Amino acid sequence: MNKLHKDLSNAIRFLSIDAVQKANSGHPGMPMGMADVATVLFKNFLRFNPKNPNWLNRDRFVLSAGHGSMLLYSLLHLTGYKSISLNDIKNFRQLKSICAGHPEYHPGTGIETTTGPLGQGIANSVGFAIAEEILKKKLGKEIINHKTYVLAGDGCLMEGISHEAMSLAGHLKLKNLVMLFDNNSISIDGPTSLAVSDNFKKRFESYGWDYMLINGHNEKEIFAALKKVQNAKKPTVISCKTKIGYGSPNKSGKASSHGSPIGLDEIKLVRKVLDWKHEPFEVPKNILNEWRKIGNKGVKLDSAWSKIYKRKKNLVDKVFKNNFSKALKSEKQNSLKENKSLASRKASELILNALTKENNTLIGGSADLAGSNNTKTKYHNAINFGNFNGDYIHYGVREHAMSGIMNGLALHSKFIPYGGTFLIFSDYCKPSIRLSALMQQRVIYVMTHDSIGLGEDGPTHQPIEQLSGLRSIPNLNVFRPADRMETIECWELSLKNLKTPSVLSLTRQNLEPIRKKYSNINKCSFGAYEVLRTNKKINLTIFASGSEVNLAIETSHKLAKDKIYSKVVSVPCQDIFDLQSKSYKKKILYEAKFKISIEAASTDCWKKYIGTEGLAFGIDTFGKSAPYKEIYEYFRLTVKNISQKTKKLIKS
Amino acid sequence: MNKLHKDLSNAIRFLSIDAVQKANSGHPGMPMGMADVATVLFKNFLRFNPKNPNWLNRDRFVLSAGHGSMLLYSLLHLTGYKSISLNDIKNFRQLKSICAGHPEYHPGTGIETTTGPLGQGIANSVGFAIAEEILKKKLGKEIINHKTYVLAGDGCLMEGISHEAMSLAGHLKLKNLVMLFDNNSISIDGPTSLAVSDNFKKRFESYGWDYMLINGHNEKEIFAALKKVQNAKKPTVISCKTKIGYGSPNKSGKASSHGSPIGLDEIKLVRKVLDWKHEPFEVPKNILNEWRKIGNKGVKLDSAWSKIYKRKKNLVDKVFKNNFSKALKSEKQNSLKENKSLASRKASELILNALTKENNTLIGGSADLAGSNNTKTKYHNAINFGNFNGDYIHYGVREHAMSGIMNGLALHSKFIPYGGTFLIFSDYCKPSIRLSALMQQRVIYVMTHDSIGLGEDGPTHQPIEQLSGLRSIPNLNVFRPADRMETIECWELSLKNLKTPSVLSLTRQNLEPIRKKYSNINKCSFGAYEVLRTNKKINLTIFASGSEVNLAIETSHKLAKDKIYSKVVSVPCQDIFDLQSKSYKKKILYEAKFKISIEAASTDCWKKYIGTEGLAFGIDTFGKSAPYKEIYEYFRLTVKNISQKTKKLIKS
Repeated sequence: MNKLHKDLSNAIRFLSIDAVQKANSGHPGMPMGMADVATVLFKNFLRFNPKNPNWLNRDRFVLSAGHGSMLLYSLLHLTGYKSISLNDIKNFRQLKSICAGHPEYHPGTGIETTTGPLGQGIANSVGFAIAEEILKKKLGKEIINHKTYVLAGDGCLMEGISHEAMSLAGHLKLKNLVMLFDNNSISIDGPTSLAVSDNFKKRFESYGWDYMLINGHNEKEIFAALKKVQNAKKPTVISCKTKIGYGSPNKSGKASSHGSPIGLDEIKLVRKVLDWKHEPFEVPKNILNEWRKIGNKGVKLDSAWSKIYKRKKNLVDKVFKNNFSKALKSEKQNSLKENKSLASRKASELILNALTKENNTLIGGSADLAGSNNTKTKYHNAINFGNFNGDYIHYGVREHAMSGIMNGLALHSKFIPYGGTFLIFSDYCKPSIRLSALMQQRVIYVMTHDSIGLGEDGPTHQPIEQLSGLRSIPNLNVFRPADRMETIECWELSLKNLKTPSVLSLTRQNLEPIRKKYSNINKCSFGAYEVLRTNKKINLTIFASGSEVNLAIETSHKLAKDKIYSKVVSVPCQDIFDLQSKSYKKKILYEAKFKISIEAASTDCWKKYIGTEGLAFGIDTFGKSAPYKEIYEYFRLTVKNISQKTKKLIKS
Repeated sequence: MNKLHKDLSNAIRFLSIDAVQKANSGHPGMPMGMADVATVLFKNFLRFNPKNPNWLNRDRFVLSAGHGSMLLYSLLHLTGYKSISLNDIKNFRQLKSICAGHPEYHPGTGIETTTGPLGQGIANSVGFAIAEEILKKKLGKEIINHKTYVLAGDGCLMEGISHEAMSLAGHLKLKNLVMLFDNNSISIDGPTSLAVSDNFKKRFESYGWDYMLINGHNEKEIFAALKKVQNAKKPTVISCKTKIGYGSPNKSGKASSHGSPIGLDEIKLVRKVLDWKHEPFEVPKNILNEWRKIGNKGVKLDSAWSKIYKRKKNLVDKVFKNNFSKALKSEKQNSLKENKSLASRKASELILNALTKENNTLIGGSADLAGSNNTKTKYHNAINFGNFNGDYIHYGVREHAMSGIMNGLALHSKFIPYGGTFLIFSDYCKPSIRLSALMQQRVIYVMTHDSIGLGEDGPTHQPIEQLSGLRSIPNLNVFRPADRMETIECWELSLKNLKTPSVLSLTRQNLEPIRKKYSNINKCSFGAYEVLRTNKKINLTIFASGSEVNLAIETSHKLAKDKIYSKVVSVPCQDIFDLQSKSYKKKILYEAKFKISIEAASTDCWKKYIGTEGLAFGIDTFGKSAPYKEIYEYFRLTVKNISQKTKKLIKS
């Protein structure tokens, strides 16, 4: 083996095992095993600029096997990213160090995405590759033409999301997407043969990917494979047979090197085996220089690119410009003018109609429910192989991959992806929704059929606990608009919250308009606001969201006839309301003595507003298959029942 | 085409389209397309007894493409199941009809599992097939030797769970598992070519399945394929090229026949095309008789089997007998005797150790985290191809399939499956956990590393909103035991709740014992109970769960020094506590004026106990990567901070 290659890859290995040892926690096996592949990739192929980590046309490197984070941190440090100092590496897995247990996305650091939950990086990388194809069409090859490399392990490939994402990537023939499969045949429980007998070649070829099998420790084979892939016509898997924990005489090739420090004694032996005479965390100057030279190559590439970029800057600015205000304004006016009963999914389609007429970076889509989610407008142009000049993705029945791919689209270059499915299937998307929130990405989940109001499809399709579950995800706005105007306002907030993903929970059934006057202020931006009061002085507050706001209004009027006066508070977004000023919250929450809430879903998340004394009208069991009005009757979500119970509460 | 076959399959078609039309909602396309395949299967191969739907050795028929529910209802009605009358079919999708929008599991009706969320039935069927292999080993081929047929559509196969489940099925060479793939190349958005280009043959062969491609409307081809599969050595996919909406001149082969009634005019045309001269819902006597004859064949098969079964009844009874009490009792005693600090995941291992020594139907497993979840004991015997005489499954990194397979194991014949993963990855399992709850199956989810207490792995691995999300699922018990004794009690409750699945949320870190006396009463069976009070009269209640109960105890003692007297309530299971008597709840909740809660997770779900005035100590943002004690400090979950804030609350 070439001496330089050996030095370079061993620098990764020892930084990794020393850091894991010092932290007394972490995953040494993968960085040791994949150091050779990573070295050849970064040295000879990957186009990146450590001095400008945000270079638009850089190749993306995604570590889907995120537990091997020290591989990434070592590479970033060695190639000269300012974001990762030697000190950060010494503080691997400690508070305040950027070198967290699993890579956490930070813009401008070389960490392209947050990984750890297995398989997610694969879906992200498909999103990157789609974004690249779209931008290439819009900006030309001179500005955008880069590869996305994703390093995935056996675990990633066992996860279902890998199937979904790779199947779509193959369908779209994403030729700039390369998977480096760390084919080490070891997982946590032991040899993968305990649970897997997949024929990988057949599997990946079935998706329309090319497949190569190489020795992941042979520099020449790695080089040849990566060389070949530069002219790929399809996405490609380079399956790298590696030894996990490479270099460790007692632990290599074994699960014991996967997820714990290998121990000081063993590290000594590795130093002997790999002929590495340096102290922990010491990277000899000559080797560090070689790594820095590799990093510096990108500076030139970037600067040559920048010249072209400057010439095309107007075009780029135009492509990335988001025009929303006109569409939002005109739709608000249409809403008032037309003033008619409308499902919020339909209201969403109407605002999307207006938005897709304008220039912006929205990329729509649905997991095979375009017509039900109302995500596709007549102005959309569906993306497919041979047509990346579009703005709509048919994701197929792949909710999980859709969500992970949307994360990739948002991360790549500020696309604003939105994707539709039924609210019940937010369950299938959950791991990726969480990552949208953790990474602070503006991803918009359009989730229709948001309650028993969907009717006959029954309990398997009727969300109950989904709203409450989604609301408890940190940094996620769950919007449940009550009419067309609120739907427009919630879309507006979803678009304007740059660092918070959104879920739009929308109805299948029609809703009566509750907002009948134009307002310059986006009322939904308070999260909760008063829509009605039956008297100046009130002794009851009725909280409700979405399709139940009208039920609340009717109940309020009915109670007023019995001289029980109330206000109705529409709560389109609990998450936003909880962030309002103390005084605003006080005004909304504590004006009246009695409180009730109405939402055709789990009741627990309303207790924080109504307290232990209030009444929560909702559903804490599973739904029913029947026409929707009968189901509302069945669960006694009716004006009659709610007003009776409320009267009893007040008069008791 | 054979006249009889034509009549039989058309009976299915017309019941299906008439029922959908009458309900004005539903999915006619699939039953019309798959009627031929289903007819040949039920007529010539499927072994079932409509008079005894619970016959242990029946073949299982799973409708993974659950939207085509009318196919199943028609078959069950036609073959003579009492559970589905013609009237039920006429009330398709109406309240109280067993013919719900999607099939809902009811024991003894022929509906083997609840389906609708796509792909789930595939995982269930893998569970059925594994259960069959295990029982065959235990009881002998004379008692158990049956096929499992799963009907899956394009949508099921796009879902990630299909990959996970089929990959494991291939690994285990489940030769009695047969997939009937409704390969109609249509999904909701239109032709599947919008989003999929998979080479199915290669894909399924890569998993180790056999693959046959047939014309799904050609009786002879269907027969030949099903005949061949009777001697399969591997799981097999019979890919049936069909026309969705077969028989409809204007809608067949189109997405428009998938999910809505085809319309009265079109139904007239279908009657013409298929030469069906009968009124809606009318099945001519001769055709019904032929179908009933098919059903009656099973009566004989069952009765022949019953004779052998009677001879072996002792063996069967022994195999299905669950011995738990001895293990539970001795472990409780050990817990008191040893009285030492222990992680609850370790406590769980110890009780499992004791349980696996006894005869019972527990089937353990983990999604590649056996050592971390402590799910595997020294007495376990891992199941693999060639060894079905075991009680432990290495599921691989396939959390979702694991959950769906466990549902299948539980449904098949009262196995008690438990499976491990990290609590954070309950997100990957969610759609199947929900189905465990909806189907009332005793499935036990062992979910370790249940908070920031896992430490360095960081925010991607630290659950925050998971507990609150899981708690809001109806009919699911989420247990978070505080020490070894509570862990044993929670296991006891999980085993004894026959109709409620359980999540055991367990720590990675050690916990001090809080229960030091033997109790004949399972205290966790109250969901919440007092563990300590610092005075007879108190003015503060501290609610806590799991690893935070000790923090609550320390805080309580600290506050007592300042003469603030309190009781500590351990809340191992909110779901169970919420079901207690009014008086018990009152005693626990309303004794003291002030209330606080402590749990290292989302706080919302505690508000129902502490009200709007109480203080909830928890975490409503994402976690951190660091040693765990530092993270507790970082989030100020410390005796010092909690007691200070509480003092302020009380003195304000």
